[in-house]
Amino acid sequence: MSITVVGSVALDTVYTPFGQAQDALGGSASYFATAASLYDDVNLVGVVGEDFPQEHLSFLRTRSAGLGSLQVAPGKTFRWGGRYAPDMNTRETLYTELGVFAEFQPSLPVAYGRAEVVFLANIHPALQLDVLQQTEGGGAKLRALDTMNLWIETTHDALTEVLRKVDVVMIAEEEARQYADTPNLRTAARTILELGPKILVIKQGPYGSLLMGADGSYFVAPSYPIEEVRDPTGAGDAFAGGFLGYLATRLRSGHELAPADYQRGLVHGNILGSFACEDFSVGKLKEVTAADIAGRYQKCVSFTHFEAAWSAGKSTAATA
Amino acid sequence: MSITVVGSVALDTVYTPFGQAQDALGGSASYFATAASLYDDVNLVGVVGEDFPQEHLSFLRTRSAGLGSLQVAPGKTFRWGGRYAPDMNTRETLYTELGVFAEFQPSLPVAYGRAEVVFLANIHPALQLDVLQQTEGGGAKLRALDTMNLWIETTHDALTEVLRKVDVVMIAEEEARQYADTPNLRTAARTILELGPKILVIKQGPYGSLLMGADGSYFVAPSYPIEEVRDPTGAGDAFAGGFLGYLATRLRSGHELAPADYQRGLVHGNILGSFACEDFSVGKLKEVTAADIAGRYQKCVSFTHFEAAWSAGKSTAATA
Repeated sequence: MSITVVGSVALDTVYTPFGQAQDALGGSASYFATAASLYDDVNLVGVVGEDFPQEHLSFLRTRSAGLGSLQVAPGKTFRWGGRYAPDMNTRETLYTELGVFAEFQPSLPVAYGRAEVVFLANIHPALQLDVLQQTEGGGAKLRALDTMNLWIETTHDALTEVLRKVDVVMIAEEEARQYADTPNLRTAARTILELGPKILVIKQGPYGSLLMGADGSYFVAPSYPIEEVRDPTGAGDAFAGGFLGYLATRLRSGHELAPADYQRGLVHGNILGSFACEDFSVGKLKEVTAADIAGRYQKCVSFTHFEAAWSAGKSTAATA
Repeated sequence: MSITVVGSVALDTVYTPFGQAQDALGGSASYFATAASLYDDVNLVGVVGEDFPQEHLSFLRTRSAGLGSLQVAPGKTFRWGGRYAPDMNTRETLYTELGVFAEFQPSLPVAYGRAEVVFLANIHPALQLDVLQQTEGGGAKLRALDTMNLWIETTHDALTEVLRKVDVVMIAEEEARQYADTPNLRTAARTILELGPKILVIKQGPYGSLLMGADGSYFVAPSYPIEEVRDPTGAGDAFAGGFLGYLATRLRSGHELAPADYQRGLVHGNILGSFACEDFSVGKLKEVTAADIAGRYQKCVSFTHFEAAWSAGKSTAATA
């Protein structure tokens, strides 16, 4: 029983009002694996260059069932540099050096193709599609993907093709609107769900996340409030790790996934996203324990649940 | 038992991608009274010009216990014109003609000063302070205010003075940050709460609202999702009407206000705000019934509550 993730492993240099990190462990697959491995075994499929530091390899080894598919290729590791504005809501990309990631061709060991949960992190839709084909017949029960504005703009048709083949789509609010070319989020959601996914997760950054089902269901999980956002890089991937990680535990225990599972998964996603924001790189995430998650889960209950009984109106309100 | 509101009564001309309204009933006190009167009697204190249409006066009369303090002054009614961008998140003010509102000096009948709930809608802080002084000794149990960026920029000290004297502050997220001069919302909230209010309500527009208590309490109510936002004008005032209207019913039935009351109040606020957005002016709000509110209240329960029991981690998750 396991989760297979395909995505980037990178060295990030990040500047925020709270400090900076130089060539720190980054990339969608790194954040995802660090979070999801708190719930289930993770198979990481990615590529790094020969310059990738041994300490990061060692760390990823502790968070992956095996690194059999973390290729070490001749050349340099994917590097990204960014600087966040004082309000932390916008960031400027300083450089993107794809290195060995430019030629990344994911190749899954047979065992990885058998994972119950497959997460296609934010990579070229053609690669996402290729990975999906490698898992066909493998018994995956949940196929999820993330994407970004670059692919919406440059590879719209390929993205549409892969959207048709997954169970869960996780996408930022602005990107959902951009993909569907409408300012109306509900219209955008319907456009995506009509392609075939059962579940659409809309990521709303500091506000939390929405769950919309092809069956018309709707659920909102506000973000877990933290004192200071030190570095939001990777929060979306950590969110995916919490969400899919929790769902993997439900599948592992033999449950068919029900609406209540997706709802709790969304809360786990927000919690892991909140940990990701509290330090640079995976600094905080790697120290998180199951008890930490459980503590935040109970707080999420307390700040979202209210008394369900209420009778309305001037005439009856006095008896409420 | 009643709610006294002091604010603007205006004639609005609004353009949105869905249509337009010409000289329609607007103003903070109009929206607030239309919403709050679904819960309790409302005393409206405001001013209009001799050009104010009889039909609006007649309507406001149905929503106010008395219009004893809606002054009709020689001159023109406050007029505002605005145009919303296609995404409905930004708007351009086309004109602001203060008319008789420029010389507004609220004068409360003694009976209005005895209201349990006093709402100082978005007007000059000096006027808000003057109204507070008129209610002193009158037995008000809950004094709340709203404000806007104009007063933060031009009358910061007067605003601070009135913030020190109210129980509840209702403010938009960006304005809280602006007032406290910090991008960190929690820091901004603390700055405001340290002035004296017991309760701070942060309005987050399409995302919903936050409740922060001077006691450190924290609660989030995501917005009620509507199919289409036709005109968001007045949503914040309708929100205040639902929030304070519900709290008035609790006070009326002899309760001391508890955290659970404020939480449910926040949900009512979101619901009334959602109705305000569904049509121009008070078009939808004026047709809302107690049953409509109760229906949305139950939906709010369903899309925010999730199973509270969960045990964390790889080793225990399978038993969750």
